[in-house]
Amino acid sequence: ILQALDVFGTAVFAFSGALKAGKKGMDIIGMMILASITAVGGGTLRDVLMMVFWMRTPLYIEISCITAVLTYYFWPKISQRFETSNFICTFDALGLAAFCVVGVQQAVERGLALTLCVVSGLMTATFGGIIRDVICGEQPRIM
Amino acid sequence: ILQALDVFGTAVFAFSGALKAGKKGMDIIGMMILASITAVGGGTLRDVLMMVFWMRTPLYIEISCITAVLTYYFWPKISQRFETSNFICTFDALGLAAFCVVGVQQAVERGLALTLCVVSGLMTATFGGIIRDVICGEQPRIM
Amino acid sequence: ILQALDVFGTAVFAFSGALKAGKKGMDIIGMMILASITAVGGGTLRDVLMMVFWMRTPLYIEISCITAVLTYYFWPKISQRFETSNFICTFDALGLAAFCVVGVQQAVERGLALTLCVVSGLMTATFGGIIRDVICGEQPRIM
Repeated sequence: ILQALDVFGTAVFAFSGALKAGKKGMDIIGMMILASITAVGGGTLRDVLMMVFWMRTPLYIEISCITAVLTYYFWPKISQRFETSNFICTFDALGLAAFCVVGVQQAVERGLALTLCVVSGLMTATFGGIIRDVICGEQPRIM
Repeated sequence: ILQALDVFGTAVFAFSGALKAGKKGMDIIGMMILASITAVGGGTLRDVLMMVFWMRTPLYIEISCITAVLTYYFWPKISQRFETSNFICTFDALGLAAFCVVGVQQAVERGLALTLCVVSGLMTATFGGIIRDVICGEQPRIM
Repeated sequence: ILQALDVFGTAVFAFSGALKAGKKGMDIIGMMILASITAVGGGTLRDVLMMVFWMRTPLYIEISCITAVLTYYFWPKISQRFETSNFICTFDALGLAAFCVVGVQQAVERGLALTLCVVSGLMTATFGGIIRDVICGEQPRIM
């Protein structure tokens, strides 16, 4: 039954992608590509993320959600007390420092070359803030 | 010979990235980053996707392509009969339901914590539609 | 200590994501999602990329950086001699050809089905240029 649901979901999503492509006036190649991406996109993200650190323990997602809930309930106080933009900047700086150390350390433990340790530290520290800003439709602060 | 092609391709793409960065007036750090991303981007996507489900069997890509080809040939009938936007919505809803079950089931099979099963279901169900809409330059329907 | 830094960084980045969500007027669900993405985004990218080819040898990143540095120092000559846009096009074409062969070969070595070898060649060849153009805020040349 699960296999059937999977095939059914794939066909249905592929169809929704192909319809969208048709509406946009794409040709048959564009239609095949958009149908494929729509159909396998969700499962691809799931499979890729199944391999990362926060899938081995719910700890990280839980910390994030609790922080969000607390921020939500104390929002009136928080937004009143602090000029939000500078405030985000301060917390970003703290996070950057902490995650840069974590990222380099992880690469060192795997015995990577020096260049790659630097790349690992850089990515771990900056990427979270970059996608946050992209999702909010802003130029990433870091660039 | 393959190794040589790989190094050659890397240098050539890095150069094309660096040229673009120069044209945009970036500094040397920006140039190094853009050259690196351009050079290793393709191979990175390939290596990452080599590990996901639809690389183990061509079934999913074939279903998607067949669906796209059928949609293409019946396009006059389809676009005439149905108001396309609502139609996409209906198929999206069917796909969401099917893939949500598949995503949660996959997480349960791996013995993940409850929070992570929810995250897995959510991602599997929604991400395909999100990238479809982003590629088409629209606000994702889900947000 | 490393574990503590990790938890600290997670909380701090989650808070910066939640603040941004609050500033944008999102509800509690949006806040939880944005806080989570901001907090685990960097580590996710790091973990995913730890598995790809250019993390096994610093060669690729070094080729890219050296190419960028050379381009930077010869920039006055380069930008003077050639009309940059056509020039990028030529190098892109060379890279596409080289990487397409590499991508297909990699898939053949893993014994993948024909459809998937085509997909692998396509992705390896085109994706670097696509993200380069997206980062520069342009419509990808390939579309």
